[in-house]
Amino acid sequence: MQLKVIKIGGNIIENETALEAFLTDFATIEGPKILVHGGGKLATQLAEKLGIETQMVEGRRITDAETLKVIIMVYGGFANKTIVAKLQAKDCNAIGLSGADGNAITAVKRPVKTIDYGFVGDIESVNSKTISALLESGLTPVFCAISHDGNGQLFNTNADTIASTIATGMSSLYDVALYYCFEKNGVMKDINDDDSVIEHINAENYQKLLDDKIIIDGMIPKLHNAFEALKQNVSKVCIGNTKMILEKEGAKHTTITL
Amino acid sequence: MQLKVIKIGGNIIENETALEAFLTDFATIEGPKILVHGGGKLATQLAEKLGIETQMVEGRRITDAETLKVIIMVYGGFANKTIVAKLQAKDCNAIGLSGADGNAITAVKRPVKTIDYGFVGDIESVNSKTISALLESGLTPVFCAISHDGNGQLFNTNADTIASTIATGMSSLYDVALYYCFEKNGVMKDINDDDSVIEHINAENYQKLLDDKIIIDGMIPKLHNAFEALKQNVSKVCIGNTKMILEKEGAKHTTITL
Repeated sequence: MQLKVIKIGGNIIENETALEAFLTDFATIEGPKILVHGGGKLATQLAEKLGIETQMVEGRRITDAETLKVIIMVYGGFANKTIVAKLQAKDCNAIGLSGADGNAITAVKRPVKTIDYGFVGDIESVNSKTISALLESGLTPVFCAISHDGNGQLFNTNADTIASTIATGMSSLYDVALYYCFEKNGVMKDINDDDSVIEHINAENYQKLLDDKIIIDGMIPKLHNAFEALKQNVSKVCIGNTKMILEKEGAKHTTITL
Repeated sequence: MQLKVIKIGGNIIENETALEAFLTDFATIEGPKILVHGGGKLATQLAEKLGIETQMVEGRRITDAETLKVIIMVYGGFANKTIVAKLQAKDCNAIGLSGADGNAITAVKRPVKTIDYGFVGDIESVNSKTISALLESGLTPVFCAISHDGNGQLFNTNADTIASTIATGMSSLYDVALYYCFEKNGVMKDINDDDSVIEHINAENYQKLLDDKIIIDGMIPKLHNAFEALKQNVSKVCIGNTKMILEKEGAKHTTITL
């Protein structure tokens, strides 16, 4: 059976209209599905209000104890429960989860090398049995970007990585398709031309796209994650705007295969 | 099969040592169990830091939109996920839930009579089928005091009422015992004498305890809830300190039956 794992970025969560439109589409998807979300700027905004300084290094948040508390409140609380309540209104029987719930995602604290990221988790395992039991009960898991170490410590965890690890973890039980939704129509040849979507990337043309510097910056770890997932039995990875999840004809996006 | 529904008050959640001790005991309880918690002063503290005024009327919080956001972050986020992670560390496979998750608890916005309580929910129904499916998967539901209306609106909801409504909702499927844990050893004859626990209250002596003004103030709605639960098939209701959940000999508490 096909399972769709869909990750939405902060720009969708921050925008009430965009979130509403996405969740309406998401609710119509038939068959088992899992949603993964972060919290985007909402955490930074709350931290600011509370006078907690946000430190970013190479686009990653340094998570001290106070920042972790904000992350748990915003990602695990406000964003997660808001999404779940909205999905329930659309007849999608959602259940909100962090990695601690049902021991779904265990991680270890990222080792300190040159940078101490604080309470950031590197994922160790996904509890596919529990997640599958929820799916079989007709529930739709909605994961926030939080994992735990099994010893009582919660961790801030990259949402893209949560999505790809869940996808690979579930691939022993399902035919898994992984969708990364963001503000663009896909991976672009020309960032200023919305129609320049590269519709298909595979291991063969990927290296050339890297060499030609068409794939740069934040897209590199996204594609790295995608290829890792494919190597571990995920059927396909799609990158594009939220409309791609409906798989309608004419909605361009990037499909990545091995 | 017996199901234990255990509610802990804010004074336990606010105190790290008390919470740790309670969760250690809770984790050792065999058989199906459900935990219900509020967030106590943690919500008031966050609201203060954010400059949101807390309005209380007769011990109940007036929940405007901003306060609701704080409640969702603190009860549904911080308190709930902290408890779940701590239980996982004690080998209890906890799963944190609001009433929106799995459509577990639906409610209506409390009608405005003399007081407008804002986004406060009066519970309509408990989805015993979904809760029972989670229990049968070996999971231990941990409910925060939040319900929803099925149309996308979350509500702040009294944790005592959540506990008694879950207990009555589950009583068609289980032999349910309901435990209200708080800072005292039970219902007291003399509030200043810790040994004056009234060990048994039933419909017969309850009226006399009311008439003699031994049961007063906040204990009245607690006992009212208890009798409502008993009338709807809950086997027994116990009120006392957290140690009563282990049912060891010599640990005094109040047991309420019809």
